[in-house]
Amino acid sequence: MTTITLCDVAPRDGLQNDAKVLEPAVRAELVERLAAAGLPRIEAVSFVNPARVPQMAGAEEVVAAIGPCPGPIKAGLALNERGYERLLATGLDEVRFAFGVTETFNQRNQGAAVEESVAAARRIASRARGDGLRCTVTLSAAFGCPFEGEVEADHVLAIAERVAEVEPDAIVLADTIGVASPRAVGSLTSRIAELGHPVGGHFHNTRNTGYANALAALESGATVLDASIGGLGGCPFAPNASGNIATEDLVYLLERDGIATGIDMDRLIETSEWLSRLLDRRLEGQLYRAGTFPAKA
Amino acid sequence: MTTITLCDVAPRDGLQNDAKVLEPAVRAELVERLAAAGLPRIEAVSFVNPARVPQMAGAEEVVAAIGPCPGPIKAGLALNERGYERLLATGLDEVRFAFGVTETFNQRNQGAAVEESVAAARRIASRARGDGLRCTVTLSAAFGCPFEGEVEADHVLAIAERVAEVEPDAIVLADTIGVASPRAVGSLTSRIAELGHPVGGHFHNTRNTGYANALAALESGATVLDASIGGLGGCPFAPNASGNIATEDLVYLLERDGIATGIDMDRLIETSEWLSRLLDRRLEGQLYRAGTFPAKA
Repeated sequence: MTTITLCDVAPRDGLQNDAKVLEPAVRAELVERLAAAGLPRIEAVSFVNPARVPQMAGAEEVVAAIGPCPGPIKAGLALNERGYERLLATGLDEVRFAFGVTETFNQRNQGAAVEESVAAARRIASRARGDGLRCTVTLSAAFGCPFEGEVEADHVLAIAERVAEVEPDAIVLADTIGVASPRAVGSLTSRIAELGHPVGGHFHNTRNTGYANALAALESGATVLDASIGGLGGCPFAPNASGNIATEDLVYLLERDGIATGIDMDRLIETSEWLSRLLDRRLEGQLYRAGTFPAKA
Repeated sequence: MTTITLCDVAPRDGLQNDAKVLEPAVRAELVERLAAAGLPRIEAVSFVNPARVPQMAGAEEVVAAIGPCPGPIKAGLALNERGYERLLATGLDEVRFAFGVTETFNQRNQGAAVEESVAAARRIASRARGDGLRCTVTLSAAFGCPFEGEVEADHVLAIAERVAEVEPDAIVLADTIGVASPRAVGSLTSRIAELGHPVGGHFHNTRNTGYANALAALESGATVLDASIGGLGGCPFAPNASGNIATEDLVYLLERDGIATGIDMDRLIETSEWLSRLLDRRLEGQLYRAGTFPAKA
């Protein structure tokens, strides 16, 4: 029996590039809706500089506005120790730290060398353990870089080994620009899984490979998969392209393949319909338009 | 080394539900462009009643307008013997006969009982062999029916066995409404492959499972995959939903996985751009918007 934990990243990765900025109260409602649908993990906020990412402003207000929903692990993204301290003060359950595995990508996104970010990941993971928080480390651009092109699996593995030493709760391989294909995903996932810590996958559907990649990760030992309700989220390096795989489409694929997720599809679809009205556009997720199958009696 | 033959069905399945009706000369140009890109097989036309499907009117004019392109096998869809006779007169290389595996679906689409269509498939396959034509038989709604719901694999296998007796060049399993998931696709594909004839897969991406399904079919013994340039094609039973998997996105996935297709990606992308202008809308295929990877120097 395959076991998989889905983490909905829509409130963070889904909305952070959106043309429409949603108020903290609305982002809190999104988190509540995802919790009500049974998502076991939710990336709720990002503790980044609001001057750089206005869509993510008011992380503390979002967390404060979330009503009681005891089910899911609620996570936030922090890209440095200042962000970590803000996150710690909110009472979230998990910190997610992310950095790019290539120098150019990481310099442009984090303003740091890869080596500096590895060190920061190790410090934050250690602090999180001391503070009783969960910690996930995401390796961005793990299957290809918009600036440097191909990324060698050995290079990613070497970085993952350094991260694994501080025993994060998961190492997440992110195909940030949606260029991976299933064999590379399966191969790298297996190798990272051998390090002995939970491995996650974060796939963008920019070139329609995202769902096949998620399945390949799962079949190769990943136990956490990120997805975003409605397929919210773009790719900042491909302005016309779609972003994250859609949570409801992934749940459909998994459940129809006999892999239980414990997630309520009807509530996911309702949430996508709500978001589609709110953002006033058709979302990339397809299930909320096509309907599930077989139809209910 | 995995070997796969891609058949582009855009000129037929892609355009048959489109709001915009393209003239025969334009449809012939589409076939020529696909041939120039190196597609080994193209479903060029449909010999159906133009009163029912005006988009497919003028099949003979389309075939006559196709300039010399010796590479691909050029196929046409015929749903009865009258259609077969029209096809035979055009000099196409292959007849594709299709019918639904459930009574309600087949009655609504073909106006025939499944048993009558099995008999027709057998007659047409036999005639095609006698006439020196290739023949492919597509089993529609093989993974789910919009009217009857779930379709049992044993039922599809029993139909395929009757079709296999007349030795078609391929039996194609079609997920006409885009409800299949990879495990079911892999399982049924393996069972049909055991009949000893080439097996194909035809997947719609209506719920974002299409590419994972294509890969599952390939890994389970399918040697032919249908796809449609730009992801052209809708699902008549889900008006807001997308249709066929996009040829260029599938080629990207396969090539990046190390599976050679012999198809020129740049020409595919050019063709999708051309179609997007012609149809005046964004197509479902994503690669022509996101670009291939790694980018060329």
